[in-house]
Amino acid sequence: MPDITEPTLLLDEARCRANIRRMADKAKRSGARFRPHFKTHQSLEIGEWYRELGVEAITVSSVKMADYFSRAWDDITIAVPFNVLEIERVNAIRPECRLNLCVMHPETIEFLRENLRRDVGIWLKIDVGYHRTGLGEDDARIGELLDLLAGDDKLQVQGFLAHAGHTYEARNREEIRAIDTAARAIMGRLVDRFSPAHPGLQVSLGDSPGCSVVEDFTGIDELRPGNLVFYDLQQYTLGACGLEDIAIAMACPVIARHDTKLIVHGGGVHFSKDAMVDDEGVRHYGLAVGDAGTNWREGWGTELNGLKLSALSQEHGTLTGPAEVLSRYRPGDIVLVLPIHACMTASDMKAYTTLEGKRLLHLEGDYPLKAA
Amino acid sequence: MPDITEPTLLLDEARCRANIRRMADKAKRSGARFRPHFKTHQSLEIGEWYRELGVEAITVSSVKMADYFSRAWDDITIAVPFNVLEIERVNAIRPECRLNLCVMHPETIEFLRENLRRDVGIWLKIDVGYHRTGLGEDDARIGELLDLLAGDDKLQVQGFLAHAGHTYEARNREEIRAIDTAARAIMGRLVDRFSPAHPGLQVSLGDSPGCSVVEDFTGIDELRPGNLVFYDLQQYTLGACGLEDIAIAMACPVIARHDTKLIVHGGGVHFSKDAMVDDEGVRHYGLAVGDAGTNWREGWGTELNGLKLSALSQEHGTLTGPAEVLSRYRPGDIVLVLPIHACMTASDMKAYTTLEGKRLLHLEGDYPLKAA
Repeated sequence: MPDITEPTLLLDEARCRANIRRMADKAKRSGARFRPHFKTHQSLEIGEWYRELGVEAITVSSVKMADYFSRAWDDITIAVPFNVLEIERVNAIRPECRLNLCVMHPETIEFLRENLRRDVGIWLKIDVGYHRTGLGEDDARIGELLDLLAGDDKLQVQGFLAHAGHTYEARNREEIRAIDTAARAIMGRLVDRFSPAHPGLQVSLGDSPGCSVVEDFTGIDELRPGNLVFYDLQQYTLGACGLEDIAIAMACPVIARHDTKLIVHGGGVHFSKDAMVDDEGVRHYGLAVGDAGTNWREGWGTELNGLKLSALSQEHGTLTGPAEVLSRYRPGDIVLVLPIHACMTASDMKAYTTLEGKRLLHLEGDYPLKAA
Repeated sequence: MPDITEPTLLLDEARCRANIRRMADKAKRSGARFRPHFKTHQSLEIGEWYRELGVEAITVSSVKMADYFSRAWDDITIAVPFNVLEIERVNAIRPECRLNLCVMHPETIEFLRENLRRDVGIWLKIDVGYHRTGLGEDDARIGELLDLLAGDDKLQVQGFLAHAGHTYEARNREEIRAIDTAARAIMGRLVDRFSPAHPGLQVSLGDSPGCSVVEDFTGIDELRPGNLVFYDLQQYTLGACGLEDIAIAMACPVIARHDTKLIVHGGGVHFSKDAMVDDEGVRHYGLAVGDAGTNWREGWGTELNGLKLSALSQEHGTLTGPAEVLSRYRPGDIVLVLPIHACMTASDMKAYTTLEGKRLLHLEGDYPLKAA
């Protein structure tokens, strides 16, 4: 069992598996396909925990991730507008792995017809109000794309795919539900409008706040939440999870002690620079849990301890909070910090250490950087 | 020569070497030792460009980096308060590589006496006004530490080391110079006060803004700037460099086009989430250079093109700006974006591609993640 000596991303496997099971069960009750987004954990081993619950199809957000997970998975959706420059990388993924691409531009269909050497499913990327990207409900290209794809055996149209990412800007669970309802209404109208000429169109949705807060997924064929595997302080603040559901925490060694703060090894290259503003208007990068001297192998409980990661440099973190709490820690102690945004923190850390001491690699720690 | 198909961190080797040479020359003129901080580039190959100019000693900010660079370097300072939990990793670094540690707490000296199995140099970490960490000028522990270390052959006291990181909050070059002057004054007073009893105490300073703006380093024995190797938009805004000095740019494929924005593959996991606020009060994550269709092998010139990286998701970036500029780009084109904070971006990308098509690895792409 290794001791912690440097910033280490701890994973509570029991919490993580419970999070996965809760979402898998909920999808099942609604009769929706659960196609979890693997961009959050990016781990072949954690992927297996989904498979044990019957999951057979996954979502990723880059061709690199699709390539990586095609080692173990046979049905992968790349849920970002297809990058035409990566056509040869797509062609190189083993043909037994079914791929689904997202498309917005009719020119991309022409490009795929000419350059793709395999069959793929095609989803039309729809904007349901997040306004990052996607085709608006009234965009004429939706009909144009469906007509272009009609009867195509190589580019097999699946339906409409959207990410209601504006749930991350909601102030409470009611607002999340309202966004989800509006998104489903848009998708429903699209299906109603285009199904007569193009039967079989499906709906794929699934941001983690929406999927966590909503109980009934009627009208949705496929759910793609990702963050639920770990959750984080952002999801907690939105009301999408409890503190007791957050399945990762960063273990940071204390390297200096001041009257008003602790300095830990644990900086921007570990946590990422995603921040939140707390109720008092103070910006922070994470909140601490547990107590000095606690054995990290026992996890970090469900209580914040009052310390806040109030500043981050490249390698340093600054923890502030009540003097009484600060005074319990000495250089060489470990502080456990819940991250703001699990996806970014996991990508920075490239690996997980379970409470049982097992090391699981993230794609970023396991993918060869090819020499040119 | 590889084509760019995914987010790629380009490196202009000529600019990079010129940046290094300028600083090496300046240090030489002042008679100060140039001990560059390698936390910015973290590349063994870029390290060699320093060595070619006579550099023999380097700075890092973690024991991991010290371990990595000890493959090629024989004199390394770990310029953060020593993390006692990493004692065995320090003991394992080959003994021919001289190490210097930073210390703030007298207890750390006792710990090192008991547990360190090699000689090291010891720097006292001083706070010269940044107030992140370090001992304040009047802290009684400075005298206590010097007395503790007096005559120690294993823990060889070097002097006072500080990082005037508050230059990053300066509004102009004059303020940077004032911070540098004040920092040198503090260090000078410490040397004056303690040299009678402890002769030979040295001064080590060196944030990149200060080192870039100041011409004369009288009173400083050692300079440790790091960011100067690449520079970035933060340094440019501070007045520490010109746009023509910025030696890295992210190449991002356009994946979707809207009337008011472009969506690129290039997100928070590539750029990091470091942001700046521009003159109009708008937060952004990078500024674009060059033009659509330009051959990236020719570099990116010295002009901003008006597009701004105004939002970042995990994998997506949103570029906004004048319609006339946006309209020149099509899906499949490459946008080149100057990063806000080179150190963070390089750590995320883990590798560089030179304009000649050569791939250079960063520590994060080259360091084994040991299985537990």
